[in-house]
Amino acid sequence: MKAAALLEAPRAAPLLAVADLHTSLADPALTSMTLLNEVTGNYPDAVSFAAGRPFEGHYRTEALHRHLRRFTRYLEQERGLGEEQVRRALFQYGPTKGIINELIVRQLEVDEGIPADPDAVLVTTGCQEAMVLLLRALRRDERDVVLAAAPTYVGFTGAARLTETAVHLVPEGPGGLDPDDVARSITRARADGLHPRACYVIPDFANPGGSRMSLDDRRRLLRVAEEQDILLIEDNPYSMFHDGQGRLPTLKSLDTAGRVVYIGSYSKTAYPGARIGYVVADQPVTQGGFFADQLAKLKSMFTLNTSALAQAAIGGLLLEHGCSMERACAREAAVYRRNLRTLLDGLAARFPQGGGSGVSWNVPTGGLFAVVTVPFTADEEALEESARRFGVLWTPMYHFYAGTGGLRQLRLSYSVLTAQDIDVGLDRLAALVEARSGRS
Amino acid sequence: MKAAALLEAPRAAPLLAVADLHTSLADPALTSMTLLNEVTGNYPDAVSFAAGRPFEGHYRTEALHRHLRRFTRYLEQERGLGEEQVRRALFQYGPTKGIINELIVRQLEVDEGIPADPDAVLVTTGCQEAMVLLLRALRRDERDVVLAAAPTYVGFTGAARLTETAVHLVPEGPGGLDPDDVARSITRARADGLHPRACYVIPDFANPGGSRMSLDDRRRLLRVAEEQDILLIEDNPYSMFHDGQGRLPTLKSLDTAGRVVYIGSYSKTAYPGARIGYVVADQPVTQGGFFADQLAKLKSMFTLNTSALAQAAIGGLLLEHGCSMERACAREAAVYRRNLRTLLDGLAARFPQGGGSGVSWNVPTGGLFAVVTVPFTADEEALEESARRFGVLWTPMYHFYAGTGGLRQLRLSYSVLTAQDIDVGLDRLAALVEARSGRS
Repeated sequence: MKAAALLEAPRAAPLLAVADLHTSLADPALTSMTLLNEVTGNYPDAVSFAAGRPFEGHYRTEALHRHLRRFTRYLEQERGLGEEQVRRALFQYGPTKGIINELIVRQLEVDEGIPADPDAVLVTTGCQEAMVLLLRALRRDERDVVLAAAPTYVGFTGAARLTETAVHLVPEGPGGLDPDDVARSITRARADGLHPRACYVIPDFANPGGSRMSLDDRRRLLRVAEEQDILLIEDNPYSMFHDGQGRLPTLKSLDTAGRVVYIGSYSKTAYPGARIGYVVADQPVTQGGFFADQLAKLKSMFTLNTSALAQAAIGGLLLEHGCSMERACAREAAVYRRNLRTLLDGLAARFPQGGGSGVSWNVPTGGLFAVVTVPFTADEEALEESARRFGVLWTPMYHFYAGTGGLRQLRLSYSVLTAQDIDVGLDRLAALVEARSGRS
Repeated sequence: MKAAALLEAPRAAPLLAVADLHTSLADPALTSMTLLNEVTGNYPDAVSFAAGRPFEGHYRTEALHRHLRRFTRYLEQERGLGEEQVRRALFQYGPTKGIINELIVRQLEVDEGIPADPDAVLVTTGCQEAMVLLLRALRRDERDVVLAAAPTYVGFTGAARLTETAVHLVPEGPGGLDPDDVARSITRARADGLHPRACYVIPDFANPGGSRMSLDDRRRLLRVAEEQDILLIEDNPYSMFHDGQGRLPTLKSLDTAGRVVYIGSYSKTAYPGARIGYVVADQPVTQGGFFADQLAKLKSMFTLNTSALAQAAIGGLLLEHGCSMERACAREAAVYRRNLRTLLDGLAARFPQGGGSGVSWNVPTGGLFAVVTVPFTADEEALEESARRFGVLWTPMYHFYAGTGGLRQLRLSYSVLTAQDIDVGLDRLAALVEARSGRS
């Protein structure tokens, strides 16, 4: 009996303790994000200002097939590949740097006026991988640090945690990062015996702050980078989504001193399901080649190469639009413009200036996000009440500050909503504000 | 004049020194691999036993379209998704764990008899990302180490370098890892104050050693893992490519103690261009959920999620073959079987036993690789001569030993060759051996 019982008893599986796993997994920010996703998932019918997703009204399954065929034709006709070589390009292991580099270079020329060498371009599994590769390359030991704006994109701080890179936050104003603040932060870090390597910056409609750097500040930031001998990591997912007044030149296009590493993403301008991003890293390296070659070596140990299939789909989409993503996403840009106006008008109507609501907000001129300051603590508990009692979701801003601020701020994303959704959502938000006012 | 000259002089771009970048980039193994790729690239007309690529004769561009449509139909008909939801699944940001987990679970049941919970499966950007995630999770500090066979897959040692994880190599015999050697290595590491966390193992036709562990050794290794409280990372890209005598059970299917984390790849059984792999990590974690949930959190900071498009293509392929990859890759398996026989017969014909050639080889019963021992140092210099003078390429084995052996061995891969290629290649190899004999 006893032996049989022993045999029957399932052996206990070993419990892995989170404390025995990498420190990034014990990070409170990660737990908060998980909580946030849970709250969002629990209230599927709420109006959601939370998701950072692009507008999805123009997605068509048939387009995937068209784009794949378009890219195949390009390989045959423009690149002169035979049938067997085309198949190899689509199905086989491919070059680590990518197979659509030439098309990305054309796009950079057409849309941004950035002249790029295809060999200095590395295609990545979304721009998230590009950030991880950059930080892995630059972080040799615990003295290597990077700078970023506060608030900053959580994907960047996540990449920093994975690579154990300390991020020194530089508070940003309505005009984005102040180059003098960046210089001061670098000087301070050096005085502490640290090695500031790079500053991460979204000059156009930053996520989440919505700020856009002026042309003058862009030039000043480039000078600081040169004087202080650091790199600038320019992340540009949103510049296409301006208010109709046109774009400012990217840091990369203004850079005459080779200081800018440029990160691009097709997740917002095309669609996220491909997971295609890229990095332009044309800095020469002592060993020869570009910084991109070193990043490619790291990539060969991370993901080997980026899905050829996904590259082909994005490649075909680029070709279909003459390699202009500005053209490709013009309809989405119009939606975001309209939604931003609806949101700002709606906020002004519900929280009139001097009306004593204690609510204020920034006035971004583009992008996908606005930031609202409220007279209560905007944490997960408030969000849970907001979802349950009022049916409206948003993102607590303090996530983007690594614990240094934003406790009474929330981020509103308006990219996937209709004008009517926005109006209903703002009514609900106003009800939440009223219920919470005076409570905390 | 002077001022003008100053203005005209291009400002020097900052030179990044490799020494200022992450240590993995200064690793001699990485430089060797780059050299190897260069040699291979410089002699495109040589017979190449070097590439670890799968047979590409059955790739058809049209199949991609068919598979995408098949997966779309599955989402509609089996999962009950509406048109809009299908589009969202293909184009939008998706769940970090993946969208084909149910199909992978079916495949594990059909092909391997492994019962898996879809929530314990994480889809990854090839199995390379799975290895990086696992090592990132398990490596908290410099005391955490992992074990692996010598010789071992360079992708694993690459992932270890990125995550700064020390790999303790355990020499393998013709039957693969000896569980007693593994136990001894763990004991030794513990005596040195280290924390052995896991042992990486390819039980079936290891790359590059070609060994297959016996059923008895598999059971013994599982016991060692339980007694010594470590995980086994089972990597299984090749088990389908057996000699026709059938497969042995995977470690995962024999595991009653929850010790095995199972890594799968569709790069060899389907095609590499999708970059789809997965990890089954069903170990419960103190915080709740599976180990796969923790790996997913890390993945959300590495690549966010795996290309939905690539997952859809592999999903459609799985559906087309009743979720059996054994069925899907039967034609390729037949090619590899035939080629292995041709290779082994060809070696025996050219280097008869007792003929004094000093050449010997292993006799794998499956997989994609054989190992040949030669009477000279098989390094990049020998490879360069082999390519230039004799028109035949191979892979130096010492890459797989992290400097601990294999200097007179070379790996022959026969997966993309015809029987005629193999014969021509072996003639050339014999000529190289003759030319080199006595020289080193």
